[in-house]
Amino acid sequence: MRPATVTAAPELEVAAWLNAHGSPSLAALRGKVVVVYAFQMLCPGCVSHGIPQAKKIAATFDRGDVEVLGLHTVFEHHAVMGRDALDAFLHEYRIDFPVGIDQPSDSGPVPRTMARYRMRGTPTLLLIDRQGMLRQQVFGMADDMQVGALVAGLVHEEADEPQCDEGGCRIPLSTVT
Amino acid sequence: MRPATVTAAPELEVAAWLNAHGSPSLAALRGKVVVVYAFQMLCPGCVSHGIPQAKKIAATFDRGDVEVLGLHTVFEHHAVMGRDALDAFLHEYRIDFPVGIDQPSDSGPVPRTMARYRMRGTPTLLLIDRQGMLRQQVFGMADDMQVGALVAGLVHEEADEPQCDEGGCRIPLSTVT
Amino acid sequence: MRPATVTAAPELEVAAWLNAHGSPSLAALRGKVVVVYAFQMLCPGCVSHGIPQAKKIAATFDRGDVEVLGLHTVFEHHAVMGRDALDAFLHEYRIDFPVGIDQPSDSGPVPRTMARYRMRGTPTLLLIDRQGMLRQQVFGMADDMQVGALVAGLVHEEADEPQCDEGGCRIPLSTVT
Amino acid sequence: MRPATVTAAPELEVAAWLNAHGSPSLAALRGKVVVVYAFQMLCPGCVSHGIPQAKKIAATFDRGDVEVLGLHTVFEHHAVMGRDALDAFLHEYRIDFPVGIDQPSDSGPVPRTMARYRMRGTPTLLLIDRQGMLRQQVFGMADDMQVGALVAGLVHEEADEPQCDEGGCRIPLSTVT
Repeated sequence: MRPATVTAAPELEVAAWLNAHGSPSLAALRGKVVVVYAFQMLCPGCVSHGIPQAKKIAATFDRGDVEVLGLHTVFEHHAVMGRDALDAFLHEYRIDFPVGIDQPSDSGPVPRTMARYRMRGTPTLLLIDRQGMLRQQVFGMADDMQVGALVAGLVHEEADEPQCDEGGCRIPLSTVT
Repeated sequence: MRPATVTAAPELEVAAWLNAHGSPSLAALRGKVVVVYAFQMLCPGCVSHGIPQAKKIAATFDRGDVEVLGLHTVFEHHAVMGRDALDAFLHEYRIDFPVGIDQPSDSGPVPRTMARYRMRGTPTLLLIDRQGMLRQQVFGMADDMQVGALVAGLVHEEADEPQCDEGGCRIPLSTVT
Repeated sequence: MRPATVTAAPELEVAAWLNAHGSPSLAALRGKVVVVYAFQMLCPGCVSHGIPQAKKIAATFDRGDVEVLGLHTVFEHHAVMGRDALDAFLHEYRIDFPVGIDQPSDSGPVPRTMARYRMRGTPTLLLIDRQGMLRQQVFGMADDMQVGALVAGLVHEEADEPQCDEGGCRIPLSTVT
Repeated sequence: MRPATVTAAPELEVAAWLNAHGSPSLAALRGKVVVVYAFQMLCPGCVSHGIPQAKKIAATFDRGDVEVLGLHTVFEHHAVMGRDALDAFLHEYRIDFPVGIDQPSDSGPVPRTMARYRMRGTPTLLLIDRQGMLRQQVFGMADDMQVGALVAGLVHEEADEPQCDEGGCRIPLSTVT
């Protein structure tokens, strides 16, 4: 589950966003934990497990700490999972977090962000920490309690650590309050 | 659940059949119990409850006794629930019983068979007896045990009753064997 | 699932009945379908699956047709699954159908009815037809739809068949009404 | 869910421990997060929801960080939920974390620890932080993801904070590594 080496999460490459004001990006969300849920609207495991789990993450955590983004990574049946179909799907399944359409590739069925992350299929859950590092990439059914613990771990560890960058080091919040 | 008056089940009016050899019709299936499961591929309750229940009916009963037919009764989002989309859906959800596309209406969003049966939405389960009478019409979530009992009731009652029509009366099967 | 040969269901041998007026017996219930659910109050599969299924059978079928009986077949932890413990269990789990305590054996841990039926463990479901024949004996998790169909099959087949015994043959009910 | 005021968790008062080496106490577990799951073996909601959740907590978190303790808070049917019955229950439900028997009261049906915590019933989940403070007390069904997040929050916040006591202040672990 945990990547062998922790690396910076590659930026999302998205053709269009639904349910979003502007264009979310990992760069702009630096400082928050970001949960990216890659799915396809006609993937049974995504519909029965992934989407409900993504909605539960969005409901459990404070949006000031955790941003949930859907990513529609279509790698099959492209003709019937276009933007309009996705729009109807989001409406019927009452999904209100931002969902990006993964940028199609010129050279094959797998879209660009999906390829960059070397995802093995859908659903895939990405957990990205406040500093933009990819901390977990889970393909398939992740357990709710485990996911709750992992996300909360990222929420807490980062906020409590001294954060140093070229501008200096800030005192961890929990020491101050 | 039970219709106030038991009436002959109106014939299905179908634009095209998938997963079928030829064109199933209630008339041609006279003598069998027929279960018609009306659904839409983007209806959450159909996907989580109706489709699994339809598959379970098909797995529980002998096809010599019970025919399961899907009916795609699209009354919203027509543009993204066309034949190709349905085809991909049936493939991904491994549905192998025949599914008819309810004939669109010229005058409104509700397709013709759906209108004839005055269905209130999807999923809707129709139970039709061996003599073509509509015995149950259930909108929403029907319980598995209840459905198992209702279908088995139709399987048994009809085969064991003397069957009389204008051509005379046949001896019930169970008396002969 | 189906016994190799259909035989008469051995009578229940019960030390005491709870939730019952008098002492139910298979002999006295001849004419009805009888569902016997053998369980132990400390058996996890009985509690999570068997008891809820038994309650659902009792709720689905008319008591004029189908009698549901629990049978507490204690073959382990005898000291803590006595009558008082069972009483508390029935109260907490809101079980209101009659439950018999299987008669302990003088010679071993397996009680008498359990031994007679050669049950392999708990939960075990027995389906007995209107004429007292053991038609199904299922150890473990039986599927709700399957059970609904089996019970309904017994309800219908027997009532609709001509019933012959040494006293003669009666006309099937469904022909008369 | 969150107590109005965060107070020190009262010590557990236990008549006997099962599945334990010695006698666990909150005092001795200072430094770890402690999850106490109060239940009764004949409480349906405890069996269907509380016990599985307690087992999942024990499986999800490292025992170096989180200790899971069961607490058998019998307030009804005392005669049939004694130590031997509990023993059989723990065996059948494969519970291997320590379980304490809440000390019966001399003056009423509610045992002592249950009374101290003013629990409203079973199941009740207590979350106690590394410094022995009662941080959450949840009566009824708590959601798995929420519980995962709460426990992880306690695991992380405390380990990362400077910990001061009469012996001085230690540098938080996360700053050192």
